[in-house]
Amino acid sequence: MVAPEISAPARVAAPDEAISLDELRLATRNHGMPLEALRYDLTPAGLHYLLIHYDIPDVDPDAWRLRIGGHVDAPVTLDLDQLRARERVSHTVTLECAGNGRARLLPRPISQPWLDEAVGTARWTGAPLAALLRDAGLRDGAVDVVFTGCDHGTERGVEQDYQRALPVADALGEEVILAYEMNGAPLPPQHGAPVRLIAPGWYGMAQVKWLREITVLDGPFRGFQNAVAYRRKRDPDDPGEPITRIQPRALMIPPGFPDFMTRRRIVDAGEVRLRGRAWSGRAPLRAVELSVDGGATWTPAELEAAGERYAWRAWSASWTARPGDHELCVRAIDELGGQPVGQPWNTQGMANNMVQRVIVTVR
Amino acid sequence: MVAPEISAPARVAAPDEAISLDELRLATRNHGMPLEALRYDLTPAGLHYLLIHYDIPDVDPDAWRLRIGGHVDAPVTLDLDQLRARERVSHTVTLECAGNGRARLLPRPISQPWLDEAVGTARWTGAPLAALLRDAGLRDGAVDVVFTGCDHGTERGVEQDYQRALPVADALGEEVILAYEMNGAPLPPQHGAPVRLIAPGWYGMAQVKWLREITVLDGPFRGFQNAVAYRRKRDPDDPGEPITRIQPRALMIPPGFPDFMTRRRIVDAGEVRLRGRAWSGRAPLRAVELSVDGGATWTPAELEAAGERYAWRAWSASWTARPGDHELCVRAIDELGGQPVGQPWNTQGMANNMVQRVIVTVR
Repeated sequence: MVAPEISAPARVAAPDEAISLDELRLATRNHGMPLEALRYDLTPAGLHYLLIHYDIPDVDPDAWRLRIGGHVDAPVTLDLDQLRARERVSHTVTLECAGNGRARLLPRPISQPWLDEAVGTARWTGAPLAALLRDAGLRDGAVDVVFTGCDHGTERGVEQDYQRALPVADALGEEVILAYEMNGAPLPPQHGAPVRLIAPGWYGMAQVKWLREITVLDGPFRGFQNAVAYRRKRDPDDPGEPITRIQPRALMIPPGFPDFMTRRRIVDAGEVRLRGRAWSGRAPLRAVELSVDGGATWTPAELEAAGERYAWRAWSASWTARPGDHELCVRAIDELGGQPVGQPWNTQGMANNMVQRVIVTVR
Repeated sequence: MVAPEISAPARVAAPDEAISLDELRLATRNHGMPLEALRYDLTPAGLHYLLIHYDIPDVDPDAWRLRIGGHVDAPVTLDLDQLRARERVSHTVTLECAGNGRARLLPRPISQPWLDEAVGTARWTGAPLAALLRDAGLRDGAVDVVFTGCDHGTERGVEQDYQRALPVADALGEEVILAYEMNGAPLPPQHGAPVRLIAPGWYGMAQVKWLREITVLDGPFRGFQNAVAYRRKRDPDDPGEPITRIQPRALMIPPGFPDFMTRRRIVDAGEVRLRGRAWSGRAPLRAVELSVDGGATWTPAELEAAGERYAWRAWSASWTARPGDHELCVRAIDELGGQPVGQPWNTQGMANNMVQRVIVTVR
């Protein structure tokens, strides 16, 4: 264990506690996707959200090796050329941080202080994971598959390399890949170069970057990121439920133009075409709805036809903007339900998909 | 003027005032360079710092035109092909935000809350500006050259397109270019696509992105960003001094590994090679010095030989890390002087180059 002044337990801010310097340190390193970038089908490198727990490791692609071992018949080690020589597939995938929206919660869990912007969509290219696991001879009784990154640090008192496990049935999903390209270029350092996991539909914590080892377990993984960090807990003593697939969410491009400091929006009166994107990792989308009265009433938006299952979909809706202040909201509804208007609070602010609110002054 | 609840005057935080939601909104959009990225000679796209006053505009490169006019004999309009057909030069340039370090000041000016990380170095390629201005027939009596971007918003009550001017002698500097490539690729949207100004040596506010117009004036430019925003003021009534070229600064890659939440560093005892970069836009560097006792005593670091004038230079120094807590500091010294250990405070937190402090626990 590490001294608590260096690595403290998770906590929730006092009701009147403003953003701390610790939270700011994370916010100046990691960054969200500015919401006007919802205009791009694929998020350009540098605009895609980033959440990096420790430091970006310096991984030499020539020296890089991936070990696959544990509960398999034939452990294997691959280099980058061997991985790139395997079957090559590409998927367009929307990724979102499980902590998105955390800083809008009251009281606020202290961690990376996201508002609404921890999202991005890229075209990821790599080798299917299932074939690699089958080639290694997955044994009967496999339960979890652990992915270990090269990034090292302490967190809530525990020193660790970043590790996350997927249940074996999910790891064998045909859409899961070991990605070495993003939007047609080699992975940038901050997105996991040279190789990362892409598990479409899952929140970002599953998408292990700077991947160096895959270990098959014949029992459940009890590591920090699965057992402690990424869980929905009602109180600190609650063991909580695991965070898995992305809940439905819609976001809009804030209309008009902003003020530098308050980010408040000014819109000229008249017909405004509102646009944005919507996605869900847990179930197919059914609809997107718009509210121009702060969530009191809702009307359907036009939703683009479904493309790739785990890519966001464009939506649009018309709004007759009349002078005055208005609060615009948007919500996505998938086959399992819709986004809440009020906050779905939990101690670590995980998988919170409360609706976006954009306050607009029409002139 | 815009209503003050939307666009408020500049202010300084109360002594005990924590980070506001307005500051956080900026921090989740804009981002610094994680300091471990000091390891790269050229900062990869997506790690270079970004400060965007309003929204990233959606500029169609095919429809884009640049108008050059004002106090010239032959106003001209160019498209992107015409600009790219001109002489093509490349410069490696370190850019830094004039507000870097602002959130470390006491009391804290309320604006983008940078700690130390608002920096990056890229290889910029484009057409020399001086030849363009000469071709347009710069008239006698030209004083300032105004650069106008496509980005629009309100700021401190004033609605504006982002505009900044350079004195004509600086605009004619042979190193100043209209850049259309960054690190060998077309500019990404967030760095000013399709064309931005690069004025090497100047703070970031001069490097106008999404450039659409260049206007030569026969008198001083009185626009907001020159006359109000980017000035060093002792108090709100002080007209202040203009912010121009980058003050000297050195930064180190924080050694060891971090805690997720506090970002505190843990280092194993023994010989540690500390590394980083140093730069100055106002004068050539003379030295870099290291302190391992919080700034009480200083020893010289090794400084890499000078390369391109406006690119950062690598430095390194050995440190025998002994168990306990230590405060590491580094400072750059150029031909005009060195970085202050205490804060050079001003009302807007501009051009503050107080030394970096890294607290390290050695085990």
